[in-house]
Amino acid sequence: MKWQILSIGKPSLSYAKAGIDEYSRRLRRYTRLEMKQQKEAGAEKNSRYLLDASEGSIRIVLDERGKKLTTRDFESEVQTWQNDAVKSVSFLIGGADGHTKEVRDSADRIWSLSGFTLQHELALVVLLEQIYRVHTLLKGEPYHRD
Amino acid sequence: MKWQILSIGKPSLSYAKAGIDEYSRRLRRYTRLEMKQQKEAGAEKNSRYLLDASEGSIRIVLDERGKKLTTRDFESEVQTWQNDAVKSVSFLIGGADGHTKEVRDSADRIWSLSGFTLQHELALVVLLEQIYRVHTLLKGEPYHRD
Repeated sequence: MKWQILSIGKPSLSYAKAGIDEYSRRLRRYTRLEMKQQKEAGAEKNSRYLLDASEGSIRIVLDERGKKLTTRDFESEVQTWQNDAVKSVSFLIGGADGHTKEVRDSADRIWSLSGFTLQHELALVVLLEQIYRVHTLLKGEPYHRD
Repeated sequence: MKWQILSIGKPSLSYAKAGIDEYSRRLRRYTRLEMKQQKEAGAEKNSRYLLDASEGSIRIVLDERGKKLTTRDFESEVQTWQNDAVKSVSFLIGGADGHTKEVRDSADRIWSLSGFTLQHELALVVLLEQIYRVHTLLKGEPYHRD
């Protein structure tokens, strides 16, 4: 299964870049992960980019109003996808103005990482850490703490 | 108002240390912040440390089963504390085994940062980013994006 993380705006905070690198590197042991960023170009163009890049994939839209999952909920979704031989899962992270209705309507899932409004790049770190955590759980491995 | 963040275990992930430094530095413009870490020493001793260090403070215990707030909920709590001239607010972050019943029973609030189980140090970054965000909101300042 391939994981795609599509987001608008390039990471500019150095700690967040380091966090993204940390979990991307760890995840390489478990799965294929592609991270794609597109420059902020206004809601309509952002939306078009996110939809085109996630074509044919299970689309998970991240949105504050989305469903709040536990790690176990996420693990059980991933287990189902693996059993169903799903080829690709894409996470869609909006730009400054959030997602258009078109993106939300095309979602297979709408999830929220936190009740809080998280800084965009910090949200990427949280998402990657969860994907990593779920992979260690599915393999029955201890979580690598440092 | 003084903010105290009390946690068990020292940060060892370099990206998380950098994130903690980033938001601690930004917060210094707005408020007094103290971060105290105590070595993991088992649930009972951890609990004693957290309770002693937060004596006289509003105690906010972070726990996965706690209430999930929005940034606006958090802002309105902080506003109330400022209006009530609260002197100090402490966040209590448990060790590997979470909090004892004694700590939960002594809490003024029990909050959860995310439905997900977040890596301990990443949770610290998320918490600091929210405290920073709330301070910019209360001052009516634009959020500093990079």
